[in-house]
Amino acid sequence: MASKVEGFNFEQRHGKARVRVARVWRNKSDNIHSMVEWNVSISLLSDCVNSYVRDDNSDIVATDTMKNTVYVKAKECSEQLSAENFAILLARHFTSFYKQVTTAIVKIVEKPWERVLVNGQPHDHGFKLGSEKHTAETTKSGFEGFIRDQYTALPETRERMLATEVTALWRYSYESVSSIPRNPLYFTERYLDVKKSLANTFFGPPKEGVYSASVQGTLFQMAKAVLNRFPDISSIQLKMPNIHFLPVNISSKENTIVKFNDDVFLPTDEPHGSIEASLSRFWSKM
Amino acid sequence: MASKVEGFNFEQRHGKARVRVARVWRNKSDNIHSMVEWNVSISLLSDCVNSYVRDDNSDIVATDTMKNTVYVKAKECSEQLSAENFAILLARHFTSFYKQVTTAIVKIVEKPWERVLVNGQPHDHGFKLGSEKHTAETTKSGFEGFIRDQYTALPETRERMLATEVTALWRYSYESVSSIPRNPLYFTERYLDVKKSLANTFFGPPKEGVYSASVQGTLFQMAKAVLNRFPDISSIQLKMPNIHFLPVNISSKENTIVKFNDDVFLPTDEPHGSIEASLSRFWSKM
Amino acid sequence: MASKVEGFNFEQRHGKARVRVARVWRNKSDNIHSMVEWNVSISLLSDCVNSYVRDDNSDIVATDTMKNTVYVKAKECSEQLSAENFAILLARHFTSFYKQVTTAIVKIVEKPWERVLVNGQPHDHGFKLGSEKHTAETTKSGFEGFIRDQYTALPETRERMLATEVTALWRYSYESVSSIPRNPLYFTERYLDVKKSLANTFFGPPKEGVYSASVQGTLFQMAKAVLNRFPDISSIQLKMPNIHFLPVNISSKENTIVKFNDDVFLPTDEPHGSIEASLSRFWSKM
Amino acid sequence: MASKVEGFNFEQRHGKARVRVARVWRNKSDNIHSMVEWNVSISLLSDCVNSYVRDDNSDIVATDTMKNTVYVKAKECSEQLSAENFAILLARHFTSFYKQVTTAIVKIVEKPWERVLVNGQPHDHGFKLGSEKHTAETTKSGFEGFIRDQYTALPETRERMLATEVTALWRYSYESVSSIPRNPLYFTERYLDVKKSLANTFFGPPKEGVYSASVQGTLFQMAKAVLNRFPDISSIQLKMPNIHFLPVNISSKENTIVKFNDDVFLPTDEPHGSIEASLSRFWSKM
Repeated sequence: MASKVEGFNFEQRHGKARVRVARVWRNKSDNIHSMVEWNVSISLLSDCVNSYVRDDNSDIVATDTMKNTVYVKAKECSEQLSAENFAILLARHFTSFYKQVTTAIVKIVEKPWERVLVNGQPHDHGFKLGSEKHTAETTKSGFEGFIRDQYTALPETRERMLATEVTALWRYSYESVSSIPRNPLYFTERYLDVKKSLANTFFGPPKEGVYSASVQGTLFQMAKAVLNRFPDISSIQLKMPNIHFLPVNISSKENTIVKFNDDVFLPTDEPHGSIEASLSRFWSKM
Repeated sequence: MASKVEGFNFEQRHGKARVRVARVWRNKSDNIHSMVEWNVSISLLSDCVNSYVRDDNSDIVATDTMKNTVYVKAKECSEQLSAENFAILLARHFTSFYKQVTTAIVKIVEKPWERVLVNGQPHDHGFKLGSEKHTAETTKSGFEGFIRDQYTALPETRERMLATEVTALWRYSYESVSSIPRNPLYFTERYLDVKKSLANTFFGPPKEGVYSASVQGTLFQMAKAVLNRFPDISSIQLKMPNIHFLPVNISSKENTIVKFNDDVFLPTDEPHGSIEASLSRFWSKM
Repeated sequence: MASKVEGFNFEQRHGKARVRVARVWRNKSDNIHSMVEWNVSISLLSDCVNSYVRDDNSDIVATDTMKNTVYVKAKECSEQLSAENFAILLARHFTSFYKQVTTAIVKIVEKPWERVLVNGQPHDHGFKLGSEKHTAETTKSGFEGFIRDQYTALPETRERMLATEVTALWRYSYESVSSIPRNPLYFTERYLDVKKSLANTFFGPPKEGVYSASVQGTLFQMAKAVLNRFPDISSIQLKMPNIHFLPVNISSKENTIVKFNDDVFLPTDEPHGSIEASLSRFWSKM
Repeated sequence: MASKVEGFNFEQRHGKARVRVARVWRNKSDNIHSMVEWNVSISLLSDCVNSYVRDDNSDIVATDTMKNTVYVKAKECSEQLSAENFAILLARHFTSFYKQVTTAIVKIVEKPWERVLVNGQPHDHGFKLGSEKHTAETTKSGFEGFIRDQYTALPETRERMLATEVTALWRYSYESVSSIPRNPLYFTERYLDVKKSLANTFFGPPKEGVYSASVQGTLFQMAKAVLNRFPDISSIQLKMPNIHFLPVNISSKENTIVKFNDDVFLPTDEPHGSIEASLSRFWSKM
């Protein structure tokens, strides 16, 4: 929220971060349980300059109230929904309920709980934590999904190892969000489809794989595949650091001790190459 | 390595920690690749007190040499092997090659790379990082396997949530290790079997689940299941913190705002209960 | 670097992250040593779209070259300089040496090594690691300094505890940077002055302290103090989360077990309030 | 707590971990405030096998009760005391109050809050977080103090850089603990003295420094200095990894690009040497 104060430009926001909530739903007919765990952060742009310059807190939405709202709204959701839908629901609440709030920014990180399999059968009420990070962020006018994942691959032609950790951020166009089907898991399905599209382009077919001329080239193919396939996604940003698995060669003055033959590598975290790019449709205003 | 020095008891060890190595094997007939990534730490108990008290380093096995040895031995392994087997191989080398070394302690943490599936088919050379931690540790006279994993479950009878992160440490008896079959993946298979046994006891059958009277009771059942099933495991230690998912109840002076109905929880990391126990056979000298 | 590619908008950058370097200087006359440890990340905006869409890497500045450049330039610095000066020096190199590079973004995080005192005397060549994080970031047209620090205070009037972790980011105006004195530690001195100004405003005089009506009010006073005092700083952003030290009250149905009397608190990391704001001069284009 | 259960050896303990408490004391005469922040973990060895094997929890000291006890005891401490004293106080409570508890293990990690200086004057109620970790651990029969700190030094003779992170653990003899003066800050003073003794031995005099033939030699001198100086300390363990600052030399086929001259180093976290040793008096039973 920008304003002019005592001869300066002033921008401010406030909110509540790291509000943790778990929600369990039990299906009445078969008693199968579902659950989600979310870490919610809310930031409000609102007209409350007086709290900064005149010690007058009357326009402030208390951050304790924001926290309580998360629990109230989670309770009201009588059926399972995606993190994206819950973020939209919270953002709509804050901007409609408080007249001084012009924009609400809601960010949700979902813990990757997965139903366990016991003897190959999905368990009714047992869950296990996976490793993937799924994040949803919304402002009033659009919203975004993230994934973070770590891949490695051995491209065919030149036998060097390509290792990266993909952070993907995409934005749904405002038009598509206004008309989304009322399926509460719409964005969960979309999320899984985008992830699959990225992975399949990265890895190529299971037998032959795909040759990667560079991280740059692979990144571009991945971004293009998503925009071509999903018309409601207006832009995608990919960060794909080049994580180095260095060939191991060791020799003393007299002898070669280890000679690299596409077999022994030294994985290292630092330094690493950093490659990032975004691809967007012309009509996007991102 | 204990000794008496200048009127004091003196114990010392030295080594090299965090030696990272990745090893790739390519099958000549079908060109399918396999890979492991290990983080190896070595600690030697050796007769080298002079380096401490007389600035004489002549008995020291240089830590740079220890690092190189990891790469040399990884190279020499012409077929895939388990982290446990590699730890045994390194420990045997250090204790047989250097006369002053009486004990070698080798610890390996394996990164959970998993072969990816593309369209349901395993990929020839694409891998993805999972979340589980697998560790092997060996000394001259026995060795141990670890897993760390995070589970949650909703036991049937009383609808409270039981969440824990299982750290399991078990020890193979020396007798069983001396006579292991020469299968280089023997301990990988054993590792998966122990994990399955622990998980199945924790979760119970997929439909009914199993009632947990307490974390203590569940822990004991899990430990007993492993010792009863695997005669070559002489003892098992389980750490199962009680991670709290607190029921959410919020009320103001006038109103109940959120009333808990087995639906909305506050997950919290601290404080947490700590429960640990070990179960061992009588003849074990652990 | 933005361009149009195959009907899409395309933006990309690449670089090398986490290049670690330590530099030691020894004064010839008194043999006193000085040292810095930096973690350098470089990102270049350059005209190299062909590497993404045509597998043609001929316009790419190799990231290995970027890494080497850090060490070459560190070597060339014959006297101690601030992280800010080193960042400017690197950015100028990349934009002047490579014609296809239009912008270089250099970020340096400095490890807080401090000279140790032995018996109250500064040691000639002994250093110790502190806890503060100092970061410098530069693009072609301006640059920024960061600090991160953690404070707590007990304001006088109402005895609640105010705890926060201050992340401050300020921007030097381009005009002031063009005309900086050629003192290689100019920004180090400026950094210490800004930090002192923020801390003194936060804590108030040592005897009376200062009353804080809210984190918001304190934040505004801190930002204003910096802009009023340092004319070459064009804007400052402050993030000051409200970290909660909750009053402890415990009671059973029958008894009060612990009754809060401004004495026992439960410190908690989550949730926390989030307050951030920036103050800038009108003529700034930030 | 060891016992025999269903034909197996069984050992178990339970407790509450990560109980966070902050305690503030205000001096009535001058209104100067003091504060500590502790993270307390308690583990009890007690006779409660029935909770594991018979689902009978009647002998269990509830972990929620342990948590409340921390707050009650913190409240009862009407004047500032050391973490060690608070650990002793809690351990005595659990072993005397509950007949089934044979041993209590209490571990406290203290956050390094330091009083700030404003214009060189200590502030009445402002504190700042430092970087050092101070831990106290006690069982019924003795207890231990820890520090963790990071140093670097440039020894004179051969200009290589010696960098390490010192983890020191020492044990007070039981006899000395029984007769400690009733000064509630006794162990705080002892802690500072031990730290100073370790640092002074490591760094040597401010002007000349001290030559280190090896990390091993330096470690031994440090341990000996502590045992010689403090008769109530029965043993000390030091872990001093050899953190590598690698000399930077870069060359292409044609040219030397960077030639090391004791000036430019590459600091690296992995791998690192690991050196640890303990020195103890003969009569110690550690």
